[in-house]
Amino acid sequence: MKSEIAYTDVDEALSKLFAEVTLTPSSETVPVEHCYNRVLFKDLRSDVDIPFKNSSHVDGFAVRAEDTAKASKSAPVTLKLVGSVGLVESAEKPLAKGQAIKVRTGSYLPDGCDGVVPKEYATLENNTVIISNPVNEGAEVVRGGSDIKKDDIVLRKGHKLRAQDIELAKTLGHSQLVVSRPPVAAIISVGSELTDDPAEVGKSKILATHDIVITHMVEEAGGKAKDLGIIPDDLDVISKAISQGLLEASMVFTIGGSSVGEADLVSAAINKLGKPGVVVHGLKLQPGRVAGFGVVQGKPVFILPGLIQSTVNAFVFLAYPLIRRLLGLLSARRDGVVYAKMADAVEFRRWEEFKKVTWVKVYEGIDGLMAQPVRGESPMLNVLIQTTGYVLTPEHRLKLEKGETVAVNLVPGISMLSTYAP
Amino acid sequence: MKSEIAYTDVDEALSKLFAEVTLTPSSETVPVEHCYNRVLFKDLRSDVDIPFKNSSHVDGFAVRAEDTAKASKSAPVTLKLVGSVGLVESAEKPLAKGQAIKVRTGSYLPDGCDGVVPKEYATLENNTVIISNPVNEGAEVVRGGSDIKKDDIVLRKGHKLRAQDIELAKTLGHSQLVVSRPPVAAIISVGSELTDDPAEVGKSKILATHDIVITHMVEEAGGKAKDLGIIPDDLDVISKAISQGLLEASMVFTIGGSSVGEADLVSAAINKLGKPGVVVHGLKLQPGRVAGFGVVQGKPVFILPGLIQSTVNAFVFLAYPLIRRLLGLLSARRDGVVYAKMADAVEFRRWEEFKKVTWVKVYEGIDGLMAQPVRGESPMLNVLIQTTGYVLTPEHRLKLEKGETVAVNLVPGISMLSTYAP
Repeated sequence: MKSEIAYTDVDEALSKLFAEVTLTPSSETVPVEHCYNRVLFKDLRSDVDIPFKNSSHVDGFAVRAEDTAKASKSAPVTLKLVGSVGLVESAEKPLAKGQAIKVRTGSYLPDGCDGVVPKEYATLENNTVIISNPVNEGAEVVRGGSDIKKDDIVLRKGHKLRAQDIELAKTLGHSQLVVSRPPVAAIISVGSELTDDPAEVGKSKILATHDIVITHMVEEAGGKAKDLGIIPDDLDVISKAISQGLLEASMVFTIGGSSVGEADLVSAAINKLGKPGVVVHGLKLQPGRVAGFGVVQGKPVFILPGLIQSTVNAFVFLAYPLIRRLLGLLSARRDGVVYAKMADAVEFRRWEEFKKVTWVKVYEGIDGLMAQPVRGESPMLNVLIQTTGYVLTPEHRLKLEKGETVAVNLVPGISMLSTYAP
Repeated sequence: MKSEIAYTDVDEALSKLFAEVTLTPSSETVPVEHCYNRVLFKDLRSDVDIPFKNSSHVDGFAVRAEDTAKASKSAPVTLKLVGSVGLVESAEKPLAKGQAIKVRTGSYLPDGCDGVVPKEYATLENNTVIISNPVNEGAEVVRGGSDIKKDDIVLRKGHKLRAQDIELAKTLGHSQLVVSRPPVAAIISVGSELTDDPAEVGKSKILATHDIVITHMVEEAGGKAKDLGIIPDDLDVISKAISQGLLEASMVFTIGGSSVGEADLVSAAINKLGKPGVVVHGLKLQPGRVAGFGVVQGKPVFILPGLIQSTVNAFVFLAYPLIRRLLGLLSARRDGVVYAKMADAVEFRRWEEFKKVTWVKVYEGIDGLMAQPVRGESPMLNVLIQTTGYVLTPEHRLKLEKGETVAVNLVPGISMLSTYAP
């Protein structure tokens, strides 16, 4: 009894996924304060110039630059101080020839001013400002509209909002923003051997823990996770759980029970629920080759293998691109990357036609970032514990050379910005 | 009237901060499910071997390797199938010579087995397993303790917990973990010109928005932010607000009102509250030179300037290292970094004795990552909108060369993993 597995190219699998799934990005309106890490659903345009008009870059005295053209240490120029402009008002009158006005950092400049002398470079005596150096036109002046121009698109649709973006939106007068609605993902752990109860661990049960990783990966990717718990190896029960997941969520993840062959109850359960059922089972991805997905009611059911590295890889290559697409993220296919040199070679004895995932630990060497391959079979959790990100070896390559510069792909939830900090 | 500012070296300022502040890291016990992104307060040690014992890497037949030594296509070896081991049980008896037992991926192997034949490479006829190739000792066997060894330290104190770390902790049987308690930071926006009400924006008021950036930076750094709102330029009111902040939080941030000179009400307010009061005001950091901090009741009061790039830089160089230290993070001084080549030169006309911060946009060029300096004065929000991270130019250097390889420092809240993805 040999099982024949038709392994599908990863890119082809993704095309099929995008073709079969009928989900589309949707939006919701959210108070701007709660938009951190959310994805903009529409371009954000500015209705105003920022700054609204010319303002001072320093505390000092605003002047007409031409009045100071001949100033020198031996023959300082004196200007008449006509008042001050704070931060809460604008000057009422334009500045006339021979006059200066006191300003603070950020004060809007009166018309006529085209330069500011920092207070350290001027002397105030009674109502006279004494200046010993010429002021260049535009010196210490922040021009109106120099930061943001009216009608500019300041943030693009599909941009993930950082702290400064929220500040910008608020500065532009937005109290709420239209952002992508996070897709909801239901997670089901399949296996009669699984338990959530540490007291049951021993000869007959093992703890279900991969759901934790998938939950955080979904949420870091920008979705919402609903953990539906553990389901035994029983076709009807699995089928009902997936059905429940499809009711409550936009996508379902099954973890485990995905071995291709007689015990492949997950595929049978998916096929029972409707057309097209299982679309891809068996991926040209190593580790991860027993992964796949089905589509039911236009929603994907991801078949994640039970060995942790395969679980994670299948998520990265199948689910993560879909979540990014549903969020409308600018980049649909990948996240951040750092470049590093391989600290050791890696040879693959098999999997010529496959994409190979090598998890590496990035560290700072004398000549820059180095990528140390983390060795270990796909069930080994310790590989992911040691890792910073993964290096992808394409089809028809069976070696990563020592010293070769590689792209290390960072994965939300698994990688952290600080992972390779000293 | 000239003001004399004593600018303090950034590293010296940090030493003074660490010396004057009496705060120390503290811990709390948290259910493991809620430990994502928290910082371990103690080394995590394993009490068990993982896997608990030898297990199979594939679905197939577990054998004694020596029984198969002479197997070939022309003369296959036949072994007697004596049963099967699923995932929920262990075999009761050791495997005897000439026997095979059916196993699943993850099944614990009976004693005596030292190799597994994947089911694709064996044929089952009635109760006989037919094998045409020798099985190497250890083939497809995942050794007990090969993932995690008993008594190993699996995660170090000071490690920030990722998805896979939470899974590991749970796998090791921990239902809760001792993690660092997040320091609480109170945030006060100072300025009579500020408002929270968009309806008041116009001639006389501007929106307070920098508190949003600082809130997110505090939280991304691992702290908790309490926004105490806007305070007018009034010594007593500022002093009371800081006092309230010190009651409710481990540290206080004032934003704005920090110009060195006559309107420096924040320093006066800090000095009014107790010794040592203002410790550093004026930093050899550009933008950020009017930043500083005081210490009252052993807690820091950070004086953040009001121009946004200075606000952010002061946070990055003063507050962030303290928060990291209070969390006990392994790296107290910095976060992630990527290396890139300067796409343009940057020249500094002044600030020879200062550290210079240049915000850059990182993008993928033909030869790898490039860093494009984002130009703009320190009040310009758009610089931070365009940025990926910052390049630091040290004292006594006044130029970054085009083509020079630089470290681009990533800042939590401001930078994102995906910022430079295509």
